[in-house]
Amino acid sequence: AVDAPRLLGRIRELGAVGRDDENRLTRLAASDADKQGRDLLVGWLRQAGLDVAIDRVGNIFGIWQSPENAGQAPLLIGSHIDTVIDAGIYDGCYGVLAGLEVIETLKASGFSPSRPIAVAAFTNEEGVRYTPDMMGSLVHAGGIGVGTVLAAVGTDGSVLGQELARIGYAGDEEPGFLRPHAYLELHIEQGPVLEREGVPIGAVENLQGISWQRVTIDGVANHAGTTPMSMRSDAGHAAARVITFLRDRAKGSNAPTVATVGSIRFEPNAINVIPSRAVFTIDLRDPDERRLRVEEAALASYLGQLAAAENVTVSVERLARFEPVLFDIRIVERIEAAAKKRGLGARRMTSGAGHDAQMMARIAPAAMIFVPSAGGISHNPREHTEDAELVAGANILLDVVTQLAG
Amino acid sequence: AVDAPRLLGRIRELGAVGRDDENRLTRLAASDADKQGRDLLVGWLRQAGLDVAIDRVGNIFGIWQSPENAGQAPLLIGSHIDTVIDAGIYDGCYGVLAGLEVIETLKASGFSPSRPIAVAAFTNEEGVRYTPDMMGSLVHAGGIGVGTVLAAVGTDGSVLGQELARIGYAGDEEPGFLRPHAYLELHIEQGPVLEREGVPIGAVENLQGISWQRVTIDGVANHAGTTPMSMRSDAGHAAARVITFLRDRAKGSNAPTVATVGSIRFEPNAINVIPSRAVFTIDLRDPDERRLRVEEAALASYLGQLAAAENVTVSVERLARFEPVLFDIRIVERIEAAAKKRGLGARRMTSGAGHDAQMMARIAPAAMIFVPSAGGISHNPREHTEDAELVAGANILLDVVTQLAG
Ligand SMILES: NC(=O)NCCC(=O)O
Ligand SMILES: NC(=O)NCCC(=O)O
Repeated sequence: AVDAPRLLGRIRELGAVGRDDENRLTRLAASDADKQGRDLLVGWLRQAGLDVAIDRVGNIFGIWQSPENAGQAPLLIGSHIDTVIDAGIYDGCYGVLAGLEVIETLKASGFSPSRPIAVAAFTNEEGVRYTPDMMGSLVHAGGIGVGTVLAAVGTDGSVLGQELARIGYAGDEEPGFLRPHAYLELHIEQGPVLEREGVPIGAVENLQGISWQRVTIDGVANHAGTTPMSMRSDAGHAAARVITFLRDRAKGSNAPTVATVGSIRFEPNAINVIPSRAVFTIDLRDPDERRLRVEEAALASYLGQLAAAENVTVSVERLARFEPVLFDIRIVERIEAAAKKRGLGARRMTSGAGHDAQMMARIAPAAMIFVPSAGGISHNPREHTEDAELVAGANILLDVVTQLAG
Repeated sequence: AVDAPRLLGRIRELGAVGRDDENRLTRLAASDADKQGRDLLVGWLRQAGLDVAIDRVGNIFGIWQSPENAGQAPLLIGSHIDTVIDAGIYDGCYGVLAGLEVIETLKASGFSPSRPIAVAAFTNEEGVRYTPDMMGSLVHAGGIGVGTVLAAVGTDGSVLGQELARIGYAGDEEPGFLRPHAYLELHIEQGPVLEREGVPIGAVENLQGISWQRVTIDGVANHAGTTPMSMRSDAGHAAARVITFLRDRAKGSNAPTVATVGSIRFEPNAINVIPSRAVFTIDLRDPDERRLRVEEAALASYLGQLAAAENVTVSVERLARFEPVLFDIRIVERIEAAAKKRGLGARRMTSGAGHDAQMMARIAPAAMIFVPSAGGISHNPREHTEDAELVAGANILLDVVTQLAG
């Protein structure tokens, strides 16, 4: 079994890195806070005697290999340590630190793996500062070019390549240098299912499709007091229509489609000026690719009607688009079996969130283990999982790793 | 008649002050750009031989008085030189510079006024950086305390009193020191009426009521991918509902009520996080006080329902509230008569915008002269009035001033 105090202590220690003035945890990819978190992690990897490798997009690997197994494809355990704004401490970090914990436990036990075992922390999984999300693992899997990613411009106008160089994490390895035999990721569920059903372990068999778009609506700035309602070309109001359209459509359907407008900006953003411009993001998801396409088409047609009806122009930019992913059924079955063996309930489930596993599934058999999230809350400082649940998840990871590298 | 090239040249010169990196005119109250504009204006006032006085809230006065009339209450002409964000060059500046132009013209003509004539540029008329709008004239009229105003916190977190001191415009005079005999303000219409009807002069007989509120909606941040639509407490979506409610209600009625949401902010404002908070402003106006109250009550009741229906909390802060104002009918008639005498059409009209005249009407007979705005566009860099129309308006001001100070 893993060393519970060590794992939990590290989760808390990393969770204290990147607190802003208001004590909010915000450790955006390639920021100063991310550098501090990376430094802490790399220190732990070194302490554990692992070989540390960093690739050109800042993905960090801690590799445990021996002269006997060095020629084999490694078993890779991964996740991320970047966070959203005002985040919880578990999202991502739990998976990385549990990966390290499993390796240390195996090393100490005298276990001699048939292949190298490595733990990865991928760059910019959250996609909050730079899009797309799961960026580091997507590069690793060959789904996007290194140059494109290094040139990505952030919400703050920064350029990822420059930021990685600045914080000292523009490494030498070519992304994808490590071709895994299989990939495992342990993560908090971030949704309500496991808690509601009282099941401690999720064996994640698939992950829903993700469609991210940025919409820019242009109207005409004019005086809030003098412009009759009938003569307005109000970009802000048109944006509000899109938000209510998405909500009504998703909420009114029986499908599990989710739609979110998480960020918005008006120009000139003044109390007595009709907005000339509204820029906002749309996050649309569905486990069924066909249905996701129908929803995207419905949105596009609504935006077309809106442009005419509200006398505005609408332009749309794709920020990310990932089809739903099926994980490797044999690994999913191993997760279920491992839970059963430890006397823990498990259920197969869909991941509502995007994860690095979804990208790694392109190049290796992959699956995920979930543990419950209290109240289904994540991307929120109130994100919480009980210590015993965290430890149970790490032990299931230990068992599956032992099998896959035995 | 006024010196047209001098007036038009100054409007253009002042309109070049406060251009940002993108060549947008943004001269917010008490900003560095405002300081530059004020310096330019004060230079012109001094050149014209006027006594310059600055009060504690930064209102600037250029006073023409003689030993003979020094004991009389002055005739005051005023407006403002602060602007909105990405503004036109006429809003406010036209009235101040035409006031100066009229005084210079009268001085040069050998006219000997029965009372002092002064021109004022009031601080923060726009209300974009600090609320309420018409702040300087409101203080002058005794409608708000100097201390309250100097402590006002701006959209950028600045404090007005500190900013005025920083730019060197925290003057010595006690606000209200100058009690006018009457007040006149010349302004572009900023709306579509005069142009649509082909009438060059508006004799403004009233000004609609203004209600400004800031609404804060609190929901619960959660993951955009994992949180079912039915379990959301989405502050951003609730804000969008308010925007569409206001629009539908105002657009669906026969009343002239206008409703605008000009500024908004989401927290944490991240693509894959359901907004925990939305903060936005509401600008509601109606020429009829009773109807404005009905609209405010309808909004309040909608916000109450919304809190329950969307599982959010809603709090509301008043930023400004001004009842409709009736201007002095004798001055309105003089404006009409002056236009007639010059062979220009005039119509009585309502002001949709707020103006310093509305505050000065509390302490002196007041009225306004409007000239057309091309396309009814204002608070927009495309704001435009033809030179001939600007000059015609200034000449009507000259005529009315001559009568009132004759
Ligand atoms: N696990 C997680 O929160 N990933 C962020 C990407 C997303 O699903 O929005
Ligand atoms: N004239 C003018 O634009 N005033 C600003 C105050 C307002 O009406 O919103």
